[in-house]
Amino acid sequence: MGRWAPGARGRLAEAALELYVERGFEQTTVGDIAERAGVTERTFFRHFADKREVLFDGSQHLQDVLVSAISGAEPGTPPVDVVATAYERAAELLEGGREHSAQRSRVIAATPGLQERELLKLAGLTSAAAAALQERGVAAPAALLAAETGGTVFRVAFDRWVAGQGEDLRGCLRTTLAELRGLTGS
Amino acid sequence: MGRWAPGARGRLAEAALELYVERGFEQTTVGDIAERAGVTERTFFRHFADKREVLFDGSQHLQDVLVSAISGAEPGTPPVDVVATAYERAAELLEGGREHSAQRSRVIAATPGLQERELLKLAGLTSAAAAALQERGVAAPAALLAAETGGTVFRVAFDRWVAGQGEDLRGCLRTTLAELRGLTGS
Repeated sequence: MGRWAPGARGRLAEAALELYVERGFEQTTVGDIAERAGVTERTFFRHFADKREVLFDGSQHLQDVLVSAISGAEPGTPPVDVVATAYERAAELLEGGREHSAQRSRVIAATPGLQERELLKLAGLTSAAAAALQERGVAAPAALLAAETGGTVFRVAFDRWVAGQGEDLRGCLRTTLAELRGLTGS
Repeated sequence: MGRWAPGARGRLAEAALELYVERGFEQTTVGDIAERAGVTERTFFRHFADKREVLFDGSQHLQDVLVSAISGAEPGTPPVDVVATAYERAAELLEGGREHSAQRSRVIAATPGLQERELLKLAGLTSAAAAALQERGVAAPAALLAAETGGTVFRVAFDRWVAGQGEDLRGCLRTTLAELRGLTGS
C-alpha cells in the first residue's frame, strides 16, 4: 500500500513489484527478488515473512494513521465524517504514487491468493476504524456502519484514482463520498 | 450460508458444522465428517472440494437469487433500493436458520483461512451485484457504490441477527439500512 521504505527493505519491495509485473507473481522467486535488489535471500527474510507480504508492507502504517486520525477528531463530529477525514489523512501516504499503486493493484487482481490477503487487510482496516469509533463513544452498530461505509468509499475512490479518473486520491475520496450521500439519500 | 440440502450432501454439511463446533475446524478430518454423516470419504469428495467448501455450500445459490432479484427489479428504482430489496430476497434463504448461521459464523471467526474465504465470497456477491446493476444501465461508480453499500448493510444486519438483536433478518436489514441513511445524510 505505502511506497518504498529506504534502504534494503525499500529496494526489495521495489524489485518485487517490478518482477511481479514483468513475470507474474507465481513465476517470481524470493531468490529473484533478492538478486534484483542486490541483497541475499537471508536479508529478504529478515524483512518479510514471504513474497506475498512484500506487497502489504505499508498497510500497518496506513492503519495506524487511520486510527490515530479517528481518535484525534474533534469531539461531536458525525461518525461518517470522522472516518472520511481519517481516510483522507491515510490517503496522503499514497498520494503521488499512483503508478506504483496501479501496478500493485493489477498484480493483486491477477492472483486469488493475493486478493484474499488484500481483502483481509482491508477488513482489518474496517475493524480497527470501528473499534476507534467505539472508543470515542459511538454505539456499536453505528460505529461498524460508519467504518464499513468509509471502507467502501476508500475502495471505490482508490479504484477511480488508479484508473486515472480524478486528479488526486483525496479528490476521488470527496467525489465518491458525495455520490454515496446522493445514492443513500432516500 | 444456506441451510441443508437434502440427502447425503445435506447430512455431510450438517455433520461438518457439528464437528467444527465440537472439536474445532482444524481438528476435524474429512474422514470424521463422512463417518458422522454415515457415508464414505469418496462421497464427501463427490460433493465438496475440501472441508472449507462445506461451509460455503449455499453461497452460489444466494448469489443467484441476489442477481436475479436485481435484474428483475422495477425499472427506474433507485440503485440502493434495488440492492436492498434484492438482499431481502436473498435473506429469505437464511431466515429460520439463525442458530445454524450463528454457529457457522463462530467457526469462521475462529479460523483465519475461513475468514479469507468468507471475505472472498462476500466480495464475489458485491461484484455480481455491481455487474447486475450495470446491466440495468446504472453507471459504473454508482453501481459499485450501491452494491458495496448493500453488502455493508447485509454484513452488519447479519451480525445483528445472529447476535439475536432483532426478530428476523429482514427486519435487521431494514433497521440497518435506515441507520445507514441517517448516518450518511449530511
